[in-house]
Amino acid sequence: ETMPTPTLFTEMDTLQHEGDELEWRESARWVKFEEKVEEGGERWSKPHVSTLSLHSLFELRTCLQTGTVLLDLEGYSLPQIVDDIIERQIEEGLIGPELKDKISFVLLRKHRHQTKKPIHRSFADLGKSGSGGTRSPARSPAAGADFNRSTEDLRSKQAASYGRLRHAQSRSMNDIAETPSTDQMKNKFMKKIPRDAEASNVLVGEVDFLEKPFVSFVRLSQATTLGGLTEVPVPTRFLFVLLGPPGKAKSYNEIGRAIATLMVDDLFSDVAYKARDREDLIAGIDEFLDEVIVLPPGEWDPKIRIEPPKKIPSADKRRKSVFSLNELGQMNGTAGGGGPVSDEEVMPAPHELGEELAYTGRFCGGLILDIKRKFPWYLSDFYEGFHIQSISAVLFIYLGCITNAITFGGLLGDATDNYQGVMESFLGTALAGTVFCLFGGQPLIILSSTGPILIFEKLLYEFSKNNGIDYMELRLWIGMHSCIQCFFLVATDASYIIKYMTRFTEEGFSSLISFIFISDAIKKMVGAFKYYPINIDFKPDYVTAYKCECLAPDPSKSILGLNVTALDWTQLSKKECVKYGGSLVGKSCKYVPDLALMSFILFFGTYTMTVTLKKFKFSRYFPTKVRPLISDFSIFMSIMTFVGLDMLIGLQTPKLIVPTDFKPTRAGRGWFVMPFGKNPWWVYLASSVPALLVTILIFMDQQISAVIVNRKENKLKKGCGYHLDLLWVGVLMAVCSFMGLPWYVAATVISIAHIDSLKMESESSAPGEQPQFLGVREQRLTGILVFVLTGVSIFLAPILQCMLFFFFLYMGVASLSGIQNGLKRKLEKFWDRIKLIMMPAKHQPDFSYLRHVPLRRIHLFTLLQIVCLAVLWILKSTFLAIIFPVMILGLMVVRKMLDMVFSQHDLAWVDDILPGKEKKKKVDEKKNTKKDKKKGKGGEDREDVSVLVAPDSNSEWAARCQPGSYYN
Amino acid sequence: ETMPTPTLFTEMDTLQHEGDELEWRESARWVKFEEKVEEGGERWSKPHVSTLSLHSLFELRTCLQTGTVLLDLEGYSLPQIVDDIIERQIEEGLIGPELKDKISFVLLRKHRHQTKKPIHRSFADLGKSGSGGTRSPARSPAAGADFNRSTEDLRSKQAASYGRLRHAQSRSMNDIAETPSTDQMKNKFMKKIPRDAEASNVLVGEVDFLEKPFVSFVRLSQATTLGGLTEVPVPTRFLFVLLGPPGKAKSYNEIGRAIATLMVDDLFSDVAYKARDREDLIAGIDEFLDEVIVLPPGEWDPKIRIEPPKKIPSADKRRKSVFSLNELGQMNGTAGGGGPVSDEEVMPAPHELGEELAYTGRFCGGLILDIKRKFPWYLSDFYEGFHIQSISAVLFIYLGCITNAITFGGLLGDATDNYQGVMESFLGTALAGTVFCLFGGQPLIILSSTGPILIFEKLLYEFSKNNGIDYMELRLWIGMHSCIQCFFLVATDASYIIKYMTRFTEEGFSSLISFIFISDAIKKMVGAFKYYPINIDFKPDYVTAYKCECLAPDPSKSILGLNVTALDWTQLSKKECVKYGGSLVGKSCKYVPDLALMSFILFFGTYTMTVTLKKFKFSRYFPTKVRPLISDFSIFMSIMTFVGLDMLIGLQTPKLIVPTDFKPTRAGRGWFVMPFGKNPWWVYLASSVPALLVTILIFMDQQISAVIVNRKENKLKKGCGYHLDLLWVGVLMAVCSFMGLPWYVAATVISIAHIDSLKMESESSAPGEQPQFLGVREQRLTGILVFVLTGVSIFLAPILQCMLFFFFLYMGVASLSGIQNGLKRKLEKFWDRIKLIMMPAKHQPDFSYLRHVPLRRIHLFTLLQIVCLAVLWILKSTFLAIIFPVMILGLMVVRKMLDMVFSQHDLAWVDDILPGKEKKKKVDEKKNTKKDKKKGKGGEDREDVSVLVAPDSNSEWAARCQPGSYYN
Repeated sequence: ETMPTPTLFTEMDTLQHEGDELEWRESARWVKFEEKVEEGGERWSKPHVSTLSLHSLFELRTCLQTGTVLLDLEGYSLPQIVDDIIERQIEEGLIGPELKDKISFVLLRKHRHQTKKPIHRSFADLGKSGSGGTRSPARSPAAGADFNRSTEDLRSKQAASYGRLRHAQSRSMNDIAETPSTDQMKNKFMKKIPRDAEASNVLVGEVDFLEKPFVSFVRLSQATTLGGLTEVPVPTRFLFVLLGPPGKAKSYNEIGRAIATLMVDDLFSDVAYKARDREDLIAGIDEFLDEVIVLPPGEWDPKIRIEPPKKIPSADKRRKSVFSLNELGQMNGTAGGGGPVSDEEVMPAPHELGEELAYTGRFCGGLILDIKRKFPWYLSDFYEGFHIQSISAVLFIYLGCITNAITFGGLLGDATDNYQGVMESFLGTALAGTVFCLFGGQPLIILSSTGPILIFEKLLYEFSKNNGIDYMELRLWIGMHSCIQCFFLVATDASYIIKYMTRFTEEGFSSLISFIFISDAIKKMVGAFKYYPINIDFKPDYVTAYKCECLAPDPSKSILGLNVTALDWTQLSKKECVKYGGSLVGKSCKYVPDLALMSFILFFGTYTMTVTLKKFKFSRYFPTKVRPLISDFSIFMSIMTFVGLDMLIGLQTPKLIVPTDFKPTRAGRGWFVMPFGKNPWWVYLASSVPALLVTILIFMDQQISAVIVNRKENKLKKGCGYHLDLLWVGVLMAVCSFMGLPWYVAATVISIAHIDSLKMESESSAPGEQPQFLGVREQRLTGILVFVLTGVSIFLAPILQCMLFFFFLYMGVASLSGIQNGLKRKLEKFWDRIKLIMMPAKHQPDFSYLRHVPLRRIHLFTLLQIVCLAVLWILKSTFLAIIFPVMILGLMVVRKMLDMVFSQHDLAWVDDILPGKEKKKKVDEKKNTKKDKKKGKGGEDREDVSVLVAPDSNSEWAARCQPGSYYN
Repeated sequence: ETMPTPTLFTEMDTLQHEGDELEWRESARWVKFEEKVEEGGERWSKPHVSTLSLHSLFELRTCLQTGTVLLDLEGYSLPQIVDDIIERQIEEGLIGPELKDKISFVLLRKHRHQTKKPIHRSFADLGKSGSGGTRSPARSPAAGADFNRSTEDLRSKQAASYGRLRHAQSRSMNDIAETPSTDQMKNKFMKKIPRDAEASNVLVGEVDFLEKPFVSFVRLSQATTLGGLTEVPVPTRFLFVLLGPPGKAKSYNEIGRAIATLMVDDLFSDVAYKARDREDLIAGIDEFLDEVIVLPPGEWDPKIRIEPPKKIPSADKRRKSVFSLNELGQMNGTAGGGGPVSDEEVMPAPHELGEELAYTGRFCGGLILDIKRKFPWYLSDFYEGFHIQSISAVLFIYLGCITNAITFGGLLGDATDNYQGVMESFLGTALAGTVFCLFGGQPLIILSSTGPILIFEKLLYEFSKNNGIDYMELRLWIGMHSCIQCFFLVATDASYIIKYMTRFTEEGFSSLISFIFISDAIKKMVGAFKYYPINIDFKPDYVTAYKCECLAPDPSKSILGLNVTALDWTQLSKKECVKYGGSLVGKSCKYVPDLALMSFILFFGTYTMTVTLKKFKFSRYFPTKVRPLISDFSIFMSIMTFVGLDMLIGLQTPKLIVPTDFKPTRAGRGWFVMPFGKNPWWVYLASSVPALLVTILIFMDQQISAVIVNRKENKLKKGCGYHLDLLWVGVLMAVCSFMGLPWYVAATVISIAHIDSLKMESESSAPGEQPQFLGVREQRLTGILVFVLTGVSIFLAPILQCMLFFFFLYMGVASLSGIQNGLKRKLEKFWDRIKLIMMPAKHQPDFSYLRHVPLRRIHLFTLLQIVCLAVLWILKSTFLAIIFPVMILGLMVVRKMLDMVFSQHDLAWVDDILPGKEKKKKVDEKKNTKKDKKKGKGGEDREDVSVLVAPDSNSEWAARCQPGSYYN
């Protein structure tokens, strides 16, 4: 009895008159939702929720009470089944034997299914549908007038049909093909139907020879393919036939829709499969009626087709609640998230980080668990990477990585007098990234240089230059100390303190990073206008007044006296002129025309195009397969478009020059840094103090990014490895220090982008069902490929500078607003709350926390968060930037203090609850659930209700649920 | 009995425990849709459709059957009413007399209403809600846990309350204020409730002293304000009380929601007002149940709040159909547009142009009718213009007019060697526009120069120059002839042929105009790059190589020999250099840096900003009053922003210079053209031939624009005046010809913009109801103001050229896609259909014609339309442009030919039906309607149904509708 019943595909065919012929024409189908044949449009409607009338359900109930119900009929062909039905009806005295032939004739007419017609038919049709409104025969009787055809009309037409029946007895009674046609076999709709599905066929129609309706519900003992009966080659299990006297086609149609809707209902289909008799079916309808949702006629137009909801109650949940009226009571009730966020129910789930961050108390306990957890997946981490989606992910992340490598390389080169430059940056990124993706605990994390580290290096270099200490050697020792400190943190399971980071901290951190990206992009773009200044006062007419001449220096003052006269000064370029001591004179010397504006246009154009293309996924244009492609490759396409445009125009827009030889950027340093010899011995020990700062920085940066990547909503299945990650970051610190390469740590924004580009969604099965987010394609391949490619790209062609700026802007905005993949992410909640401030209350979206927390408390929380961000931003801009990691710790302290301002209830909705408080809350919650359950107990509840509805009879409600009493 | 019943406002209060106190707290309210109090969020939910459970409706039915129903009770205060109810219950033996005090005590507890709390309370709250989760008293018992409170808890709390009752008999039993509080009086919600409204109050709660429910339904004989009972000072007419034993709060709540929903139902509230006894009410519920819309539980989550639909069935329509089950049968049925376009029902309304275009057959018959029609409105045409909306309309259209005036002025000046220039253009626009708006038949039409006329003038000028004919005099004669020809057309009611123009022709014409605008904008923008060429090969380092020197001409060759040496050639500007015969030498001479790019940025930025701001109306930000303002002034704000930006940057971006003196642009011509003297006599006669072309052009251009403006969907109430319009256009032709001003005719795009900017929407009354488009503010004032302002603006400050280009682009795009006011217009349908081509079928929106016409036919129609447009475009670009008006006639011929390709049915959906065919179609339609009506006859229909549902009893269905049989 517990075996799951097959899914039912329901097809409803109605009896139509094709000229003088009778035929069954498909009028609607259900996999989960209803799809109707638009007869005029010759197409399928969009899937929609079947809105029924209460009336038709009651009529259906009566039909099943009075008609023939044949359960577990042995059926192998339609004629035989039809015969059996008619025999039974005659036996039961429902019809006279004289009707047998006629009914049989009608039921065995051929079935015409709605299949897609190729568009090119339209031109073939051109000739056919001549002037004056004669319509092509394929659709002539359609278009809404069917049910309006007068009864006389019907009679005359049917008379002709039966006439044929009488006069041509030699002709087969049976119009239906015995095997499915090729049209049926080839029907692409098949892939929308689950494999184990069985069909239920609903046949309704009006005939002139009946005085009262002919109703029959048949369940076959075995699902059987009944020839051309069903649109798709799915074996039929159920058959519902309703033939009635003429004039009531609309009613019949509605009854047909009602039984079809019932058949695809999970609970009723169970009943239908298991029913022992007619009464079981009736009881099934009554159960369905109990659960039914009612819309008041004055508040809703029945003609509106309701789109399938994002989420529907699962069959199991409904099964549980079907006898407990509690659920119904909750409809629109006080508790419950509902609305667009209905997955968050009575209370948001507490902040959970899983057992990966549990404090083991053993030496390296966490690390060992990490390895044990990740090892079994190691092989699959490779073969699961082979997927078309990986290509777009690699491309996207590769662009991000080289951008980062180039930018940070350039900045590091500036900061350290080229001790580390673009070359080292590329090499280090490739090396560290590849190693981490090969052996790290969470290979979806992308390592990169980050802002705080850049600032630290800059300060360190200045310090060592001013104090005569060798920078590279000092850096090496800091790296080694830091590595050892990381090992210590790994061995002691220190990562568990990450637990105390709630959404508040994460939002603060990642918003800050996003803002840094955005502000960098804008700063750099504005910088271009400084580097290529525009001559504001230029007057086109006075073009003659603008020039820039190189004047030879006064020969007497010149050191290179010899050259002064030898050179043709007018032929020198700007740089040469300055080099040889000449002076530039003229109005146009300090201006560079067009380049800055052109850069701006390219920068902004690329950004706009990317954002536009990104949204293309949600547009209606182009086939479903093309749209996500356009969306995924939006960055690539935009960059290519605008780089192409730039090349086409040919302006010398600023380009970034990348190295051409494989050698350290600064001449005179090798690929290996020696640990001893250049600094006094005490430096080796003292360097442990700055190393501590670096360790905190690395630890916080790495683990927060990891927490964000490992969030529950990303549905990662292979577990994470915080300790293992940290171990490798430590190792790479040491290795990079030895080779004089920059240090690397998890980059939040690119890692999120990586996750997003690997998200998997279910291919929705039933038409109208929402695709589900299934998880992330967890593997090591994309990461490895990205970094190998980065390594190979050391000698890249010159890159358009403004594209870099664009990339910065886009990364920042994308991580802030979640446009990257359109899937809502937690970070977005912060953004949502900021937007709420600007919205009048009545226009705010129906976020679940708005139902549970007063708006002013939410605003207060958001404002406090903004203040924190502002403070962080200010600190970041001062020399305090180096203690950036400590600031994150500060955020955690602020969050702890918020416990005093906000109630745990409010925080549970707006933020998360801290570990200590969590238990308290959980206890509360359990108490509530217990109460709920106690109340939810079906029997008790229903008895109580009966007290209400009928004070004098304690059992009336129960009695009502029995067939024949409540709904009769 | 036919007097309309007042609207009901329903408030539902539930019994709550505030510490030891009992109180009634508002939990939901209904004006039309349900608004729930989000207790946790301390706010009102968005209005939504009340989703009920069938169960609660049946329970309510039982409640009314078993409880006390008091109709037309004389009530003046709540205590007295409560006393009456309890007395009756005791009389009927439903409760024992010992409960009287307790029930009375509970029912007279004070009511707490949900009123908005100011946001600044949040900071005051800060201190109150200390640490550890104690929540502020105002919301402590809320947040979804209310109904979960255990019964014991309730008992102990209530015991305390009743304890007070016993121990403090001196204290008043009555907590309710006798008069409404200031909070109630000041409630802003009042304005959402119709003035004549009465209240119905629903009180539900659980109490520990009852063993069975206490139910009472009261209708007062007079609506009475019962003190603090209702949130707003609306007198109460109905009172529903449900008190029950503890543990079933959710059920009670649902029953309360059910009766509240019923009370706001138009039909049930009628029943409630008129009911003579309990049975009438029960019958009302049964009627409601008959109409109810049912959603299957497996396809819909009851927790989802359904947003109010755009359109709900009117009470009248429902009243009509309540006994005819036909309507229910149509639910999602074959016929019926439904979906987002549900206003178009079974068949689109035929193409109607109203009696204004009827052929009278009398001399000036149409004109006289026009005058008769318009005259009664003449006074209101002025005072109805005084509205704040007019200001934004004037500003917007004024911008459009001066843009047109400047642009066409400039182009005309070019084409006619300044015989007509910017000055004439301004003057003519002001003159013609003012006259037309003062006396024209359709003052919403804006006159302007148009493209075809420009082309005609150009050809005419070239012709007269080449043939030695005086242009101004020739033009005067053409104008006069044309004026007379217009008079002839007016006198013969010729405008009636406009009837043959269907949507096909209109779409073709207005799309073409839109495309001309867009292409002009782009052409002109590209032109800027030609006028200010960019030096593509500029190398910043070789700035020294770029200069432009003015070299003196060879003195021997110079004509102005004397000056050659006297001049300082290096100081001359480009123009002076050329003037004095110098030659410009250097790499930078032919380039102008930055200006073109800057223009482009300003052009594109303005456009983007306008489109973005335009969409602001639909965003959620800012209060409802601010948003449309931002939207309406988007153009103004964008232009101001970017003009400001331009001034801030200070680049010499191209500006258009407008005249500084009031005199004809060309020296030597006066403000009046003499008709005789310069051309031979035969020219005066021959000019009637080109005049004929002009007349056709004017006629088509004018009347098509008029048809578009007068479209039914604009809901114009004051009628139109095609003949009167044409008369004035003719008069103005003559006047302008005499003064040497350009000719003016209705401009489609600006006229549509004018209409759009004057559209009126209803202020939605009930929360959740859609505002309705009421019509257009029809008046003469905005038009007159626009043209007076245009006249005053002759000496405008220099205008940014790129803003003109922007304006062209925007006007074109706006008229194509209807972004101007967000309201769907017919022209949009063409655009929609073009978009359909790019959409896969399953993603297409649910347009009604898609349900009725096969997709390939729709595509074919669209493609044919595009081909026509392309042909028109090509013709327009050749010398054939002058016969442009004839091309429109061509479109009408093509449309006539489409009758042979498409059936009338398809054309009725996609286009309109031509007058001749219309009749045929109408006959068909009537036949259908007749059939429908025949079928729709209530009684007959229901009898037939009964045949179906119960073959053995013809009257069972009828019997079922009686209380006690069907639903019991």
